[in-house]
This record gives sequence, structure tokens and C-alpha cells, in this order.
Amino acid sequence: MANYERLLRVALGEAPADVVITGGLLVNVLTREIYPATVGICEDTIAYVTGAEDAAVAGAQVVDARGCWLTPGLIDAHMHIESTHATPQHFADAVLPRGVTCVAQDPHEMANVLGLEGVHAMRRAAVGLPLRVLTLASTCVPSVPGMETSGAEFGAAEIDALLDEADVIGLAEVMDFWGVIRQKPRVTEIVKVGRARGALMTGHIRQLGGRELNAYLAAGIDSDHEQLDAAGILARSRLGMTVEICCCQARDTIPAAVEAWRMGGPLDAVVFVTDDIPPQELISAGHLDQGVRRAIQLGMPAAEAVRAATLLPARRLRQYDLGLIAPGRKADILLIDDLNAFHVAATMVNGRWAARGGQMLEPSTSAYAMPESALHSVHVPRLSAEDFAVVGHGSRARARVLAQRGRELKERLLPVRAGQVVWQDQPDLALVSVWHRHGRTQDHASVLLEGCGLQRGALATTYAHDAHNLVVVGRDPGDMAAAANALREAGGGYAAVCGGQVLALAALPVAGILADRPVAEIAVEFDQFCAAAGDLGVSEQPLKLLTSLPLPVVPAFRPTDRGLVDVQRQAFIPAFEFLDEETTNQEAR
Amino acid sequence: MANYERLLRVALGEAPADVVITGGLLVNVLTREIYPATVGICEDTIAYVTGAEDAAVAGAQVVDARGCWLTPGLIDAHMHIESTHATPQHFADAVLPRGVTCVAQDPHEMANVLGLEGVHAMRRAAVGLPLRVLTLASTCVPSVPGMETSGAEFGAAEIDALLDEADVIGLAEVMDFWGVIRQKPRVTEIVKVGRARGALMTGHIRQLGGRELNAYLAAGIDSDHEQLDAAGILARSRLGMTVEICCCQARDTIPAAVEAWRMGGPLDAVVFVTDDIPPQELISAGHLDQGVRRAIQLGMPAAEAVRAATLLPARRLRQYDLGLIAPGRKADILLIDDLNAFHVAATMVNGRWAARGGQMLEPSTSAYAMPESALHSVHVPRLSAEDFAVVGHGSRARARVLAQRGRELKERLLPVRAGQVVWQDQPDLALVSVWHRHGRTQDHASVLLEGCGLQRGALATTYAHDAHNLVVVGRDPGDMAAAANALREAGGGYAAVCGGQVLALAALPVAGILADRPVAEIAVEFDQFCAAAGDLGVSEQPLKLLTSLPLPVVPAFRPTDRGLVDVQRQAFIPAFEFLDEETTNQEAR
Repeated sequence: MANYERLLRVALGEAPADVVITGGLLVNVLTREIYPATVGICEDTIAYVTGAEDAAVAGAQVVDARGCWLTPGLIDAHMHIESTHATPQHFADAVLPRGVTCVAQDPHEMANVLGLEGVHAMRRAAVGLPLRVLTLASTCVPSVPGMETSGAEFGAAEIDALLDEADVIGLAEVMDFWGVIRQKPRVTEIVKVGRARGALMTGHIRQLGGRELNAYLAAGIDSDHEQLDAAGILARSRLGMTVEICCCQARDTIPAAVEAWRMGGPLDAVVFVTDDIPPQELISAGHLDQGVRRAIQLGMPAAEAVRAATLLPARRLRQYDLGLIAPGRKADILLIDDLNAFHVAATMVNGRWAARGGQMLEPSTSAYAMPESALHSVHVPRLSAEDFAVVGHGSRARARVLAQRGRELKERLLPVRAGQVVWQDQPDLALVSVWHRHGRTQDHASVLLEGCGLQRGALATTYAHDAHNLVVVGRDPGDMAAAANALREAGGGYAAVCGGQVLALAALPVAGILADRPVAEIAVEFDQFCAAAGDLGVSEQPLKLLTSLPLPVVPAFRPTDRGLVDVQRQAFIPAFEFLDEETTNQEAR
Repeated sequence: MANYERLLRVALGEAPADVVITGGLLVNVLTREIYPATVGICEDTIAYVTGAEDAAVAGAQVVDARGCWLTPGLIDAHMHIESTHATPQHFADAVLPRGVTCVAQDPHEMANVLGLEGVHAMRRAAVGLPLRVLTLASTCVPSVPGMETSGAEFGAAEIDALLDEADVIGLAEVMDFWGVIRQKPRVTEIVKVGRARGALMTGHIRQLGGRELNAYLAAGIDSDHEQLDAAGILARSRLGMTVEICCCQARDTIPAAVEAWRMGGPLDAVVFVTDDIPPQELISAGHLDQGVRRAIQLGMPAAEAVRAATLLPARRLRQYDLGLIAPGRKADILLIDDLNAFHVAATMVNGRWAARGGQMLEPSTSAYAMPESALHSVHVPRLSAEDFAVVGHGSRARARVLAQRGRELKERLLPVRAGQVVWQDQPDLALVSVWHRHGRTQDHASVLLEGCGLQRGALATTYAHDAHNLVVVGRDPGDMAAAANALREAGGGYAAVCGGQVLALAALPVAGILADRPVAEIAVEFDQFCAAAGDLGVSEQPLKLLTSLPLPVVPAFRPTDRGLVDVQRQAFIPAFEFLDEETTNQEAR
């Protein structure tokens, strides 16, 4: 916090500012006006904002901002740093040049791997960075209790403990919305902790409406980032919800937000968020800045678009000193050299320039060392081809086969020879094998997958929502074992193997989901993995195939370390039923 | 707080609501729309808001709101209950029928009389009332240290202690704005406490602008209710200030707010407040409702006007569950039977009907008993005519005479006979005598006042900003003593005396500033006092004459218990200088 005495003297013009930015156009996200202004900064705080013609410009550093617009730094109200696969330090270096100065992270993935230790690691790794990192307490660890085994389980006690930390500002997306509405004990107790503490409680629902939506809101959870169209955005606003507009490419609701603005006028409870941004997208298209850019290009006035990524998220997050260029607020300021393209020329955080021209002025440093548990998180034995055999008795097996990447389930009768299901001669099949990797059980389960494109070899990852167990998809049991073993040795990541050779390895040695490397380097390795997967036949979204396949909250059938989950019924169904000769004959008749 | 399990079941339609309001038009202050809706309530909370045609209307009480609009209860973000001269219980009964369901009080007057005990009395007297009373810690007790002696002095320690209370939500108007800007120790330490605690800090400035306004904002104090015109409202909004729009008749800035809305579009950081509403105005014109009414009548859309008295103050006060009719928010709801006239038909607080048709359903009750110190607060001796003689030596006196109710100072040479200044033969003069009444000193001081209209008798009060010492204005020393003694016996209030007879007495026996009686009764006695003052010659604003005369922050010359204050210089000047014969002759030459 700036020295109070000096701050006031700088404001009065009795002492020189540390930085004066003059000659630029201020984008006022409170009044939605754009006008010339001079901004004087003392330490981390804006001391004064005066007109363009301020005679008393005096500062250690005077910045000529002619040709530039000044906006507040962007604030991402809901996101997972882990989606970029970088540690907070390298994440910061990737987003600060994009104009993101504050994020409210939900360290949900680290929580699922390492529990409270994972949350604390993500908090502590952010201390001292030029990026402002706030944390929301991950509420759904695991996403669906009983259907998979993640590395940890959070109940009310964990959430209560997290809310004691000053930088933990509320509850992260309460994804178990059915649990809330149906008053299941675990999530109910968690929500009650939030209510009792008056905490911000953020949500995640799908197409909930009517009385069920009312019940979710009555519980006190009043935001969502799954609304996809303008009418829905307006309908939710009417109920007092904060609608989080996702601007990631996988789920871009910016056009809907622009349409809602056209229909309903000024946005009051809409905030732009990223949720998940993969490393390649961050490098190629940007972070929260891409949302502002797209909104402006679709016709939303710039001040309105910037407002939805600055002042409105600051209010939502109850950060009263952020989100506005005004005296007394934190000096988080962007210089924008093309407002319509929302091109960030320079980023200031806490009164210090962090980035210019798309580059960090200096790479961030962090004295924090990830805990030992994070560096040894892949607890699976060394595997062999035999571990990927589907063994059983009888002569045939009725296999329940995932189709359309889990959205459907089909049945196939397959021969059983020498006690193993023979599926490799069916060219459209691959085997999915999910191995618990957190050392809490010995569970692993396999199921066949139709139509993923894989022709040969194997792909594997340790980043698979939400439990982040080891997922191996393959045509060849030996390659599947090799891919698994490669990740076991690398400490996690993505691997592509064929003919016993590792074609690509994107190592994520921190908890099996992060790398302590620049995002750009991670993106290159991810591209290499995707290229290798394409060579093996999986040309369409190989990362998504692996990472979302086991998530037992997504329709309709999902393989986890515990078996094949019928998501609708929240029950296991056998992936293989072994039939003796008689049964097979009966069926044939 | 509503039972969570039942709340969700009511929201889902699985259990009947306690109250269902159906058939009315909802004024949505978030989206600024008006549309038919049905509202279901469970205990103190809104469980659901659905369309007009909700088939699942089931409730213990179903309210047919056809012909009515539904708005959130009004929230007054800055006000002094003491200005109505009623205790919180009777204040609540006066404003709830007007639609006010929440106030943020600054118990500044009680603080000046009784210190922390006075603040706590106003907090505790509000516990259990149907009105929601939040408290802001009074920061300027006394207004100007050294120029008068009030009943208490607050420093940083008192403010810090008050902020520990859950219902104390921030710092009340930091009126000593020069002290802030010039970094005077007392107010600087108080502001630093607020900053360190991240507290809401509210302000009060006059025509401050430029760098001085920036310095005040840089200190973290970001509101004001003294801005009078539209251009100023917009200019302050640009700097991130919350502009509090006073709607009391003494300082009605609603027209300026409407003009600002016409010039600048949707209001985002403007909140309607009352500041001070005298009892007669409250009875005749209303409370915060008069501001909403006037704004609508001047052309502001109803949803926008109601928004500035509901959602925007709720946000400003960081009360996230107030200010909107939406599931999960507190059931503070008004039925309005004429939206353009903003006529309140019924008031609900916490899910219970408090008032209907302008009347409380039941008068409020309070088990709280004011402390003994409040009931014996007029610590002056019994006075006689001699106490109001202006004694001195010599033959003449140079009197410094207040003119224009203190805005000017004139000089008059007056004869001294038998050791007393003779002023009664000058028909345009009256004597003002201010007596310290808090038992901390024996101070009293007198000064002559020109042109107040008083022809005979005397007026007195114990409600005089900000120290609330005993102020007596009279033509006759015997009547002045009688007026003072009448208040001494009544425990404070207003008295008018002539010929030794008490013509009117409005007793304010609680701390000498409040009565534990209905506001309407207080208003009648105030009217009687004003009529008596008029009979004695003071036809114009006799209450204001008495109460604002000694305030040493208002230009230009003010009498306090310690003497005659030159406000600009913040120094005492002698009210009388006694001249011997020689000096007088020299002056005559």
C-alpha cells in the first residue's frame, strides 16, 4: 500500500509522482466515456486523474501516451490457471502482456490431485508475482463422489479452512448443482459454510431453468458461465445472476453477450471470463483480451466491453480498489494502441510497468518451490502389455462400446481367445484404460471406444478431468504400456507412442498437470503431441478426447478408474460381459 | 436467516411459501424492466420469482397484487436518525410506511453528546426493529477540535473499536476534509484505520475540486452529498465517486440528478440519501420516498429512480442480499399502488408485512432502555437573569455583532452601565448565549446577534450542531434564564419563553436531542415551538437559527461555548472589548 502521506502530497501536486501518463485518452468504464486525461501515480496507487492540459505534470517518469487509450487492467473473474498447464509464474508472464492484471483462480485441478496442499501451492506460487492472483475455494473435489477416485475430497471443513485465508475470496463454481438442489449432504454443508460466512458463492449450471434455477439462486449461488444465448443471459440477469461470459474458443459466448447488450441495453451484471484457455490458444489468440476484442469487433462500444472485463468483475469479486482508473484505486493500467483491435501496448500493475509490446519487461521470478508431493504425483506401477489385456472367461464378450466420444453407448459381441477379448481386428475400435494414479487405490478399468480415429500406437495423459487419473487410449497393448511408462517417468503430461517409440512427450511434471516452463514452450510440445496423434489417426482434438473422456458429469457414458459410468443414472455398468458358448448360441438363435 | 432446507423446497415448489405475491408488476432495478411476476417468500428470504402465470402458486398467504408494482424496499445510504428527533423505534414506525426498509445511520449527534455510549445506544435501540439499521462510525466528533467542547472526542481508537461491531459497516462522512487533505493528525489516524481495515469510507466535502478533490479520493474516501449540480455530479462520477443525492427539502439535489441522468445516461454510482429530515418534513413530505417520487415526476424512468434508492445503495453499502427482488435476497418488498406518484401501499421487511396504507400494522416495540447518562444529559446549573448579563468595566463596549445569522460580523459601540453592556434598547439585537452542557467544563459565552427578528422573550435549545450545547437566544435576560431552566428540567429540547411564561416546550429528554415518542407528536410540538417563535418575531426558520448558529465549520463567524469563532481562521475573537473613557474619546475624535 502506498505511503499515505506521500500519496496525498502527490495528489495535491506538492510532491512529484512516480509515474505520470499524459496525452492519452482515458476509457472511463464507470461513465462509459472516453476523453483526454493525465494520470499521476504514487507507488502502487493512482494519486490523481486530471484533464489533458495539466500544467502540474511532474513525475520521476513521464510517459507520453499520445495515440494510446488508457484502460484499467483486465480482471478475469473465473478461470483455472491449470488449463494453460503453466505454473502461476509462467502463466503471469503469458497473460500480463495481454493486459490481464488480476485473475480469480479456481485451482480445481490441483485440488483434485493434491487436495488442500494443491490449493495452497497455487496460492503460494502466486505470491510476489506482478499478476494479482485471488483464489476461489474449489467446491467440487471430486466432481461426483463415488464415481471416480481423485487425489482428495473436500468437505465443509476444507472450505471453511480455505475461507480463513485473506486471498481466498469466496466459493468457486459449485458445479454439483443437482446436489445443491436435491440437498445432498456434502455440497449442502459446503454451501452452508459459504452462507454462514457471507462469502461470495459462484456457480456452474447447465440448462437449468424455472424453479430449479430459482432454488440454486435461493441457496445463494448467483453466477454461471454456461449460458449460451442472449435471451438466456437476459433471463438470468432478471433473477439477479451475474452472467459470466466465456470468451475461450471452446465456448465463446461473446456474440451472445453482444446480442444481449443490443436487446437489453447497458450491461450491469455481466462479466467476461476465460474459464479454460489451453496453452496454444493463449499464445495464438490471447486470454481475456480476446473477449474484449471480439465484443468490440461485434459492435459493442469499447467502454462497455472493457467495463465487462474490468469494473464489473472488480465489483463482483468485491475488490473495491480495482477496475477503474481513478484516484485511490490501484494503478493497474493498460496502454492500448488500437482500441478497436484492443491491442495492448503496455501493462502496468501496482504502478510498475510489467510488459510492453507483447513482452514482459523482465520475466517473473518466484522463490516458491512446489512441494515434493507435486513432483511425485504419478503413483502407478510400471506397466506392461499384459496390463492392457481385457481378460475374461468364456468364448465371447458383450462389450459396451463408447461411441461419439462418450455421448452414446453401443454393444458389440467380440470373440474371447486364450482368456482375452480380441478387439484389435476391428479397425474402428481403441481401448481406453483409466488408472488411478494418486496412490489411494489400485483401481483401473478399461472400456472400448469406437470411432476416435486412432489407427495404431497409443496416447496417454495424466490431465483428465476431474480426477486427473492416468488415461491411456490405444490400439496396441505394448504401446499403451510404453505411453503409460513414459508419463510415469516424466511425472505426467501427454505422450504419443507407436511401435514402442515415444513420438511426442509433453512433460507436465508438477502434479502431472503443470510444467514450470514458459507457456509458449508448453504450447510447442502440445502441438507436437497433437501432430503425433494426428499421425496415429486422431486428427480432431486429441487433447480434448483424452481430457474430457473420463469426466462423469458430462453426458452420457464415461470411463473412470472405477469403471464405466452411466452419467444420467450415476451408476456403474459393466464394460464387458463374458458369455459362455451356450449363451452365445442362445443369442444367435 | 431462513431455514435452508425449507427455503430450497419452497423454491422448488415442493413446500408451500409463507407468502406469495402474485398479479403485480415487478420493477426490476437490475435490468431496468417492468413486467408481471409472482414472488414466493420463505421466512425472511425470497425463494422464487416466476412469471405471472405460475401454476404452482401455493402459500400460507397469497397476496393479490393486481394494480400494484413491486419494488425492493428503499435503502438510505447516509442519514442521521437524530434529525427526526425520534428514537430508532419511533423513527422506524415513521419511515416503514414510507417504504424505507434499511438505513445506514451516522449517529453523529448522539456521539457528540454521549460518545461511544451514544453510538451504542443508537445501535442497540435498533436491535429487533422491523427496520434494518446499519451504522457508520461517526468520524468527526467533535467537528473541529478546540473550537467548542462537545460531550466526547473520537480518535482512531474509538473508530477501530466501532469497526469491530458486525453492524458497523464503515466510516461515516469524513467532514473534516481539510484535515484529511492537510494531514491533520486526528483525522489522518482515523482514515488510516479505515484504510488498514479495507472499510467503506464515506465523505462530505463542499466545493472541493481539482487536485484537492483528487487528494481526498486518494485517501480512499469516495462519496459526497454536497454536490449540487448535474455537471458536478458527472465530474465526480468520472473520478469514481459515489455521489449521494440529497432529497431533503433543505438541500434537494434530485433535479440535478435527473439532469445528470439526461446528460450522462444510466446512473451507476449515484445513490439517493436523506441526510437530515426534520420531523415535520417527514410527516408532511416523507423520507427517501420523496426523492424517488420527485425524480420520477421530473422525468427519470421509474426503474432508474427506484434503482438509485435500492440496488445502488445496497451495492455501495456492500449489502449483497438487499436491493433487488430476486431469489436468495432478503424479502424487503414494497407494493406501490401508483408508480408515478411512488405511493407505497404496503411494506414488507424480512418477509413480514410491516406497514399498509401509510400505517404500521403494529407499532414497533423495543426492550432497550436508554442509558442513565442519556436521560440526564443537560449539565447546566439553574440559571438566573444575572447569568445573561454581559458584564465588563469601563464606559463603553465595542461589540462584535453577528449579522445574517453568522455569515457576517459587524461592530457596534454600546454603553456600559453599572458594569453591564446595555444592548436591549437596540431593537434589532438579541443576545446569543451558549452554555457547555456536558459537564466537562464550566464554559459559556455570549455574543450579540443582529436582525434575527426576535422582539421579546427568549428561545432555547439543546440540539445545536455539532456539540449540542445549550443555546439561548433572547431579548430579555429573565426569559433567557427561564428558557434555559425549562430545558434543564425537561432534559433538553426546544423552549420559547416570554414574560416568564413558557409559551412552547418540545421536550427531547433523550440526550437532549431525542424524544421516545412518535414522530408525528414530536412534529406537533415542533410546530408549536415554531409558532411561538414566530409570535416573538422569528418567523423564518427558528429551528435552523438555533441549531446551526454554533456550528464552527459553517462560514463565517460562529458562537460556541468557548467563544466567538472566526471559522476561516479557526481562531477565537473577542465578542466584546471594553473601552475606558479615554479610549472612547480618542475614537470619537
